[in-house]
Amino acid sequence: MSLLDALKWRYAVKRMNGKSIPEAKMNTILEATKLAPSSFGLTPYNIIVIEDEETRKKLQPHFYNQPQIAEGAALVIFATWNSITEKEVAAYMQEIADERGVPVDSLKDFAGYINGSIKNLTPEQLQIWAAKQTYIALGFTLVAAASEEVDATPMEGFIPDAVDEALGLKELGLHSAVAVTLGYRDAANDYLSGAKKVRRATEKLIIKK
Amino acid sequence: MSLLDALKWRYAVKRMNGKSIPEAKMNTILEATKLAPSSFGLTPYNIIVIEDEETRKKLQPHFYNQPQIAEGAALVIFATWNSITEKEVAAYMQEIADERGVPVDSLKDFAGYINGSIKNLTPEQLQIWAAKQTYIALGFTLVAAASEEVDATPMEGFIPDAVDEALGLKELGLHSAVAVTLGYRDAANDYLSGAKKVRRATEKLIIKK
Repeated sequence: MSLLDALKWRYAVKRMNGKSIPEAKMNTILEATKLAPSSFGLTPYNIIVIEDEETRKKLQPHFYNQPQIAEGAALVIFATWNSITEKEVAAYMQEIADERGVPVDSLKDFAGYINGSIKNLTPEQLQIWAAKQTYIALGFTLVAAASEEVDATPMEGFIPDAVDEALGLKELGLHSAVAVTLGYRDAANDYLSGAKKVRRATEKLIIKK
Repeated sequence: MSLLDALKWRYAVKRMNGKSIPEAKMNTILEATKLAPSSFGLTPYNIIVIEDEETRKKLQPHFYNQPQIAEGAALVIFATWNSITEKEVAAYMQEIADERGVPVDSLKDFAGYINGSIKNLTPEQLQIWAAKQTYIALGFTLVAAASEEVDATPMEGFIPDAVDEALGLKELGLHSAVAVTLGYRDAANDYLSGAKKVRRATEKLIIKK
């Protein structure tokens, strides 16, 4: 299946059949997600992966009881860092230095550039900026899942504080931003499975300048 | 090239070689972008595509003179709708009705659900929510471009008001949210072209619950 065919095949599945995802496919989807870029490469978020069914069922009320939370194979939550400061930037510089085998001191201009940018943002703006980065990663997850013929349902419809509480994310310095369920469609029971995909017509969506 | 190999191959190219993108590849990338999902499927944004070199050069100062703006083949700007109200929701319902051949009246519960949700958001929150949706589309653009072996540089570093002004976006009810340059790397002149890709180690990025 071409990438475009895979993207046409995918839709936000509401009912899933409980089938688990082969480990190799799951690893490919998560590896693709990991490769998503972020502003400055800082990646100010963690990715919470919940395959355990009991945990997903426990979370279901916080997702307004959407069935795919329990019927899917994995729930993936993108959670932003509550603290984005010079300390986190310094740790990131160390990661680059270690990975590229360069002295961390050679990155001080880059660190200063990032620190200058984040200092210009209020704590609320920083959180919004971090949350936006998770949506790029979500896009990567969705495309990679489709490419692996795994269904994926992106979700903003949940109560972040309740999810954070249930998973102990606050203690980890994290806050849920957006989520996606991975699994396999239960086409017979999903009213959307036969519905024609609606996307804005190209001439209405795209403006050539 | 597998999707993962394509994602490993891609990076945020800073220097491009001016080569244009074959029309078929450009169409595939934009079609993939169009297939990105959004909250409720509303897609509260437009996509501005600028292939004209003069226009890109004119915009370059508003992108802090980043060279890829001029050296790339196309600049793509995701611009959110300034107005997200019952009117836009009604137009969307008409699009669904037309596409699926159903009476628009059959969608009134869905319309009410969306209207209820957007009314809960302040104008500022609505804009943030719309901007987040554009980042999913950006993710789709980046993956599709890599899959087509076209380079892509996502960019938050620009002056939205200046870009809006230069392109007359305000008059179209639009506001620039995020951008991406598409083109081909000039590896010899790009200091990043040989740099090892840095991504947070899986065990630090992903938390299994």
